Amino acid sequence: MTYAPQKLTREKVFRDPVHNYIRVDYQVILDLIDTPEFQRLRRIKQLGTTSSVFQGAEHSRFTHSLGVYEITRQICDQFQINYPTKQPGDGLWNDNERLVALCAALLHDIGHGAYSHTFEHIFDTDHESITRQIIMTPETKVNQILSQVAPDFPAKVASVIDHTYPNPQVVQMISSQIDADRMDYLLRDAYNTGTKYGEFDLTRVLRVMRPYANGIAFLANGMHAVEDYIVSRFQMYQQVYFHPVSRGMEVVLQKLLQRAKFLYEQPDHHQSLAPQLLIPFFEHDFTLRDYLKLDDGVLNTYFIYWLDYPDTVLNDLADRFLSRRPLKSVKFNPSTEDCLPEMRALTEQAGYNATYYTAVNNSFDLPYDAYDPSAKSPKTQIEIIQSDGQLNELSSISNLVAAISGKFSGDERFYFPKEMSDTANLEVFAPIYQQFNSYINNGAIQAHPHNQ
Amino acid sequence: MTYAPQKLTREKVFRDPVHNYIRVDYQVILDLIDTPEFQRLRRIKQLGTTSSVFQGAEHSRFTHSLGVYEITRQICDQFQINYPTKQPGDGLWNDNERLVALCAALLHDIGHGAYSHTFEHIFDTDHESITRQIIMTPETKVNQILSQVAPDFPAKVASVIDHTYPNPQVVQMISSQIDADRMDYLLRDAYNTGTKYGEFDLTRVLRVMRPYANGIAFLANGMHAVEDYIVSRFQMYQQVYFHPVSRGMEVVLQKLLQRAKFLYEQPDHHQSLAPQLLIPFFEHDFTLRDYLKLDDGVLNTYFIYWLDYPDTVLNDLADRFLSRRPLKSVKFNPSTEDCLPEMRALTEQAGYNATYYTAVNNSFDLPYDAYDPSAKSPKTQIEIIQSDGQLNELSSISNLVAAISGKFSGDERFYFPKEMSDTANLEVFAPIYQQFNSYINNGAIQAHPHNQ
Amino acid sequence: MTYAPQKLTREKVFRDPVHNYIRVDYQVILDLIDTPEFQRLRRIKQLGTTSSVFQGAEHSRFTHSLGVYEITRQICDQFQINYPTKQPGDGLWNDNERLVALCAALLHDIGHGAYSHTFEHIFDTDHESITRQIIMTPETKVNQILSQVAPDFPAKVASVIDHTYPNPQVVQMISSQIDADRMDYLLRDAYNTGTKYGEFDLTRVLRVMRPYANGIAFLANGMHAVEDYIVSRFQMYQQVYFHPVSRGMEVVLQKLLQRAKFLYEQPDHHQSLAPQLLIPFFEHDFTLRDYLKLDDGVLNTYFIYWLDYPDTVLNDLADRFLSRRPLKSVKFNPSTEDCLPEMRALTEQAGYNATYYTAVNNSFDLPYDAYDPSAKSPKTQIEIIQSDGQLNELSSISNLVAAISGKFSGDERFYFPKEMSDTANLEVFAPIYQQFNSYINNGAIQAHPHNQ
Amino acid sequence: MTYAPQKLTREKVFRDPVHNYIRVDYQVILDLIDTPEFQRLRRIKQLGTTSSVFQGAEHSRFTHSLGVYEITRQICDQFQINYPTKQPGDGLWNDNERLVALCAALLHDIGHGAYSHTFEHIFDTDHESITRQIIMTPETKVNQILSQVAPDFPAKVASVIDHTYPNPQVVQMISSQIDADRMDYLLRDAYNTGTKYGEFDLTRVLRVMRPYANGIAFLANGMHAVEDYIVSRFQMYQQVYFHPVSRGMEVVLQKLLQRAKFLYEQPDHHQSLAPQLLIPFFEHDFTLRDYLKLDDGVLNTYFIYWLDYPDTVLNDLADRFLSRRPLKSVKFNPSTEDCLPEMRALTEQAGYNATYYTAVNNSFDLPYDAYDPSAKSPKTQIEIIQSDGQLNELSSISNLVAAISGKFSGDERFYFPKEMSDTANLEVFAPIYQQFNSYINNGAIQAHPHNQ
Repeated sequence: MTYAPQKLTREKVFRDPVHNYIRVDYQVILDLIDTPEFQRLRRIKQLGTTSSVFQGAEHSRFTHSLGVYEITRQICDQFQINYPTKQPGDGLWNDNERLVALCAALLHDIGHGAYSHTFEHIFDTDHESITRQIIMTPETKVNQILSQVAPDFPAKVASVIDHTYPNPQVVQMISSQIDADRMDYLLRDAYNTGTKYGEFDLTRVLRVMRPYANGIAFLANGMHAVEDYIVSRFQMYQQVYFHPVSRGMEVVLQKLLQRAKFLYEQPDHHQSLAPQLLIPFFEHDFTLRDYLKLDDGVLNTYFIYWLDYPDTVLNDLADRFLSRRPLKSVKFNPSTEDCLPEMRALTEQAGYNATYYTAVNNSFDLPYDAYDPSAKSPKTQIEIIQSDGQLNELSSISNLVAAISGKFSGDERFYFPKEMSDTANLEVFAPIYQQFNSYINNGAIQAHPHNQ
Repeated sequence: MTYAPQKLTREKVFRDPVHNYIRVDYQVILDLIDTPEFQRLRRIKQLGTTSSVFQGAEHSRFTHSLGVYEITRQICDQFQINYPTKQPGDGLWNDNERLVALCAALLHDIGHGAYSHTFEHIFDTDHESITRQIIMTPETKVNQILSQVAPDFPAKVASVIDHTYPNPQVVQMISSQIDADRMDYLLRDAYNTGTKYGEFDLTRVLRVMRPYANGIAFLANGMHAVEDYIVSRFQMYQQVYFHPVSRGMEVVLQKLLQRAKFLYEQPDHHQSLAPQLLIPFFEHDFTLRDYLKLDDGVLNTYFIYWLDYPDTVLNDLADRFLSRRPLKSVKFNPSTEDCLPEMRALTEQAGYNATYYTAVNNSFDLPYDAYDPSAKSPKTQIEIIQSDGQLNELSSISNLVAAISGKFSGDERFYFPKEMSDTANLEVFAPIYQQFNSYINNGAIQAHPHNQ
Repeated sequence: MTYAPQKLTREKVFRDPVHNYIRVDYQVILDLIDTPEFQRLRRIKQLGTTSSVFQGAEHSRFTHSLGVYEITRQICDQFQINYPTKQPGDGLWNDNERLVALCAALLHDIGHGAYSHTFEHIFDTDHESITRQIIMTPETKVNQILSQVAPDFPAKVASVIDHTYPNPQVVQMISSQIDADRMDYLLRDAYNTGTKYGEFDLTRVLRVMRPYANGIAFLANGMHAVEDYIVSRFQMYQQVYFHPVSRGMEVVLQKLLQRAKFLYEQPDHHQSLAPQLLIPFFEHDFTLRDYLKLDDGVLNTYFIYWLDYPDTVLNDLADRFLSRRPLKSVKFNPSTEDCLPEMRALTEQAGYNATYYTAVNNSFDLPYDAYDPSAKSPKTQIEIIQSDGQLNELSSISNLVAAISGKFSGDERFYFPKEMSDTANLEVFAPIYQQFNSYINNGAIQAHPHNQ
Repeated sequence: MTYAPQKLTREKVFRDPVHNYIRVDYQVILDLIDTPEFQRLRRIKQLGTTSSVFQGAEHSRFTHSLGVYEITRQICDQFQINYPTKQPGDGLWNDNERLVALCAALLHDIGHGAYSHTFEHIFDTDHESITRQIIMTPETKVNQILSQVAPDFPAKVASVIDHTYPNPQVVQMISSQIDADRMDYLLRDAYNTGTKYGEFDLTRVLRVMRPYANGIAFLANGMHAVEDYIVSRFQMYQQVYFHPVSRGMEVVLQKLLQRAKFLYEQPDHHQSLAPQLLIPFFEHDFTLRDYLKLDDGVLNTYFIYWLDYPDTVLNDLADRFLSRRPLKSVKFNPSTEDCLPEMRALTEQAGYNATYYTAVNNSFDLPYDAYDPSAKSPKTQIEIIQSDGQLNELSSISNLVAAISGKFSGDERFYFPKEMSDTANLEVFAPIYQQFNSYINNGAIQAHPHNQ
């Protein structure tokens, strides 16, 4: 028997709090889970700094990746029971696509690194290209296993993840506006944070999915379940993912890494700072093997080292990150943006290096969008299929979805040390603090008399 | 206003998946949560290697500690509403005890370190004495905050944790056979693992607790809720905490640290190995500050370093730990114990250093015990209070509890490399493997012809 | 001690699947629950014919009424802890209002009868005026108990329910667009039907409520929790309360009662039909005592009697109702409405009495509305209170709510015997059936060639 | 295509709060659900008078029956995937048995009547023999549908329910100490009462079931899940099913029916009492058609009639039942049983007819029992199957189960009017009340000085 279709004699399960069981019936899947590259995801939190606000959000990209696999498996099962293809080109489900779908689902996040987005921003790495590398390069266990299925199998799996795989059903399962990835993270993040916004009726959504020639559509009688999912996603962004305090921790992290990089580039610090596993990244010269050694704990370990490093910006930022002392923030908008230079100046006057102690941070998300061919990366729209086969784009028939469709939600915030807003404290800096706070009202920057 | 009774003008909450909200109304509690010593608990998993089997078990000692605080707060509330003291010595609840109870609840685990039990075993540290140090030494933020309540307040909090505090109600809230600690960890571990064994009816248990002169008793009409809790605890030990695979990872960890310590003591490795933050522990000469720098991520970081270290035992064990390749096990008992030397010898013959690749591991727990004054550490028994005030020890009136009372449950296992049981593989070592496996039947060592 | 403030020495609880425990600490509340008028609510289903579609929806108005009481109790507790009045007119919470609020919450539905809306329609009863009667007339146990609190207490409770009580906070707790009644029924109906649409974050909504001079407002940081509640309510109407099949059962019930009333008015049936407990209603001459004898089971009992009654319309409709054979439906709109006469005529031709076997049924709901003084019954709008005290009406700051605000949702349907659409059956009526179905496409009436 | 294997082109689902969806893929099952005999189960509460204590327990035998069907369906699926038969006599699962298993599961309770056990006791009916009749007699829709599958199919289904069907796997699915019936009612009753005692890990129990030659066994690694189920069942009996107050309502019901029957037998009441649908039962001469007309609502309707009947025992008992005023109780045992005559005499002296106002009520259950061929109805024991195929009876390897195995749990209680224990009331009967209460201590009868 070849490796590809090698089914286990008895299904193996992983206990999961969200899906109850993750069910595996291919040896390939078990072997992929057991690779060092995949096991490494256990050491990377799914939500980064979010657990500084929602303390239960301690789950890893490992558990999420298993969840995406499981939802994909359930979609394949449903398609195979209810919509099996009869002849090529009939737009129904071809179960030969199952294994590539499952592998892509499992591996879609395998290139993620420690504190992903912040790290990428500072060190110019790209988790998507690394995902591709991990799958394609013969040096990884992942590639070696995938290659046993068929020589071209790694390339197939990679093409699903980067949307170039020819079968749109497989691509949309893993990546679309309502895919296994988003469905798992909403449910899992809601479960672990203890919020309810992310909950939606997964069983019903899965039940109303159906394959068609151009991908996946949703039965008209399940429109409200899809609507509920879109609203849930919108609310998770508003309430959890964009939380200003969690972004305040992200800003600290970003400034901390930026300071370390700056110091490393100074001759007198170069030698003494030397964070062994980060050096290739400071040097802009890293291998995949270097990348795969990083995880949240490695970064935190260097932050612990830096607590004692003789640079007050570095050791203070390290302490703020480890002891959870985020920068504080106020909202601003184009009309109040011109207050920022003066607020930065006041922060400097109060003794803070404004380069490291102030920041602007945006968080915006497009909760849902109908297809717009002129967009930079046009999104696959959600299609509702009527009983006579007619397709309607979701926002065209749902008032709720139309209300949030195509509109960016989020805000733009100015971050600064919390101490700046402590006007009660009668210190030497009190007048500066008071002037600083005259710019702020109701959590937002207000136009200032001086600037008007 | 003094610090001690400084209540917040509006309750502050932390969202929690198990208790929905953790409610805080004292500034002291908020300040303790914000200390570096307490924040460090975010970086230490509550269940150590258990997440290698139940992958959802990624929660930290931080979230658990908040949970213990919250349950204690709820007990105090219930006692204050229903059983407030009228006069000294009436055995009812004195709400002046609330703050010491809450602080002890929050801090009871603060001395825990990375991979606690294994680490303690190898490096001879003791988390209980460190908890006491953190609370008592003026160098910690925790002590500084507690001291602001009253100069003797740190000592009071510490005495609750080590059971010498005079009020038995406060002590039993935090530490007894049915305390806030156990109640939180059962619910939280069940929630995160996705198992249901740990679930019991917390609201009802809390409702039937009542203070009396010698501590805390349970109303007779709530006996079954307490019974259910005992059975849940028994089953979590059987099914989750004693899981043989998770113990197989613990064995790998233990051997890995043991090997590193051994190498460090060799002159030619001393210099090259040098895991900066662990050196004080290798040297048996560490400060509290050294201890507080450790966490799971720090240890994992050194394991990543060791992947490349030129000692095949060290780098292989590091890889096994990081990539989740536990040692395998079989049960044995006194009558089959004499097979172990030969099985160890065969493991050596197959090329493994038996000192590092075989181990014996016991896991035993006493699910419940009535008071036994002759025991090494006699346990506070659970008292059921009848409507006429009479007390009955739980196991004397519950068949279910009597069935598991005073009986150790658990097993003794022999661990070895999984490869030893791979008899299908036709390798050079196949005959050795076959001989090794002739000692094993149905997951346990069987008496061997040679030894009979 | 007077009766009014007579608190129980120990809180009494009722186990509840939605709120875990219903907590009672006033003797008055216990006594009201024990009245025959309140116990009767156990025999009236909360959702009438909905259980014919969502079979779990078997819960009664009794459990819902306890739930409304419990949510009201929790609101009072929160208000008393966080917003206790300091001086008259400060717009904060006066806890002397607690008992009237609790009693009104408990009793708000006490006038509901069997299959309420349908029954009222046929027999011209009015559950609101009966609620008032039960509270006000000295012949009821409910009135006798309320009168013991104070002679004017029944009138106070009644005035809360009919919105004339002077304190707007108390009125809005029980009756507004986000009140204890709606919050309980959404959660309870979701729990029992097993749908998730009705779920929202009750704990958070309660936490962000605050009293102010003109009623109850919601803290700005809780806006999304309120938004989520509005969306949940919208979806429960769409998916559960307006379900076309459940309305098909309601139509059968309505026609059945209408036929019985018609027959009773015929001399030759008058004597033989005689449904003892319904006669006062057939005669348009009933007392409160007559009304309180009715419940779902009484009506069903007469339907069982009528299975054998020698009128084919009556016995067939009774059988349809008891054996769950709803009329079928299609949507129509003003442009297709003119097909109805011909479709009714075809139904007659197929042998059905169109008066009893066809019907038009509308279901429309206003999910949320800002205050419109010109409306027939203007609604209290939901106010979001900013940190500087400013009030914003919800839909003015929520895109989601604006999307469904002020718009009626629902549909208009034509009901007919399911047999009419059974075109596969080659019967004598087949041509009629085929002609009938030529009017229908995709679940709606389509404009017909004949009519164009 | 014949009717038997007529699978639906697309699965039909019923939304269920316990199992999420009930999935149906046979037309036969849909048709059985639509019969009047099965729909009637909607009007019979699963737990009778239990909802007087746990008010959420309002669910019907209809929803339970669907649940038993669904669990059976899941067992068949698991067996077919993992243990399909290869050749006759191999002890594995033959999927041709699926339809008979599903039908038997769905119909196993179809003979239940209103307030089943109490009614049977008074009127000498037997729901098991009626179940058989409904399935076997050509006058029912149920039989007509089953007969279309095959002429001998009704007899097969009936034989599964009465344990004479030759395939022990099918019989044990529906009826054994761990069957689909018990599993559904534990979960459903726990869900609706809001208690947690009945919860156990259904998914895991189903996963570890396997067919073998003599029926169904459980994999050794799932032993704790089975143990947990047994303990849950034990606790539901203790806490919910045997609740003394709910039994106090049952006693009222029993006495009420007994009084009505007595009066009916008196010439002067015969005519006036005349409860139309009950007459055949009063006359000991009823048909199946008579039986199928009864439900909870019909009985309650007559109780409402009787509120006005001029017999003070009858109208008072009716009022007690409808307004939830149960008889009160105390425990007794063989050593205190001799106090009963005097307590009954005192009740008479206080003006109550002791025949109708006092009662003895036993509730005993055998939580689990190993097979005992000498028992009146020997039970199928639960077999745990080891990895080498060896079977162990559950209680032989589980301390917990052994603790409650073969031991009857429950109690024996004496019921009397609550007024008898109201010693605070200074009435004419006060001395009698006081004497009565001198027999009672701590909720049980105590040996009385007079009797010693």
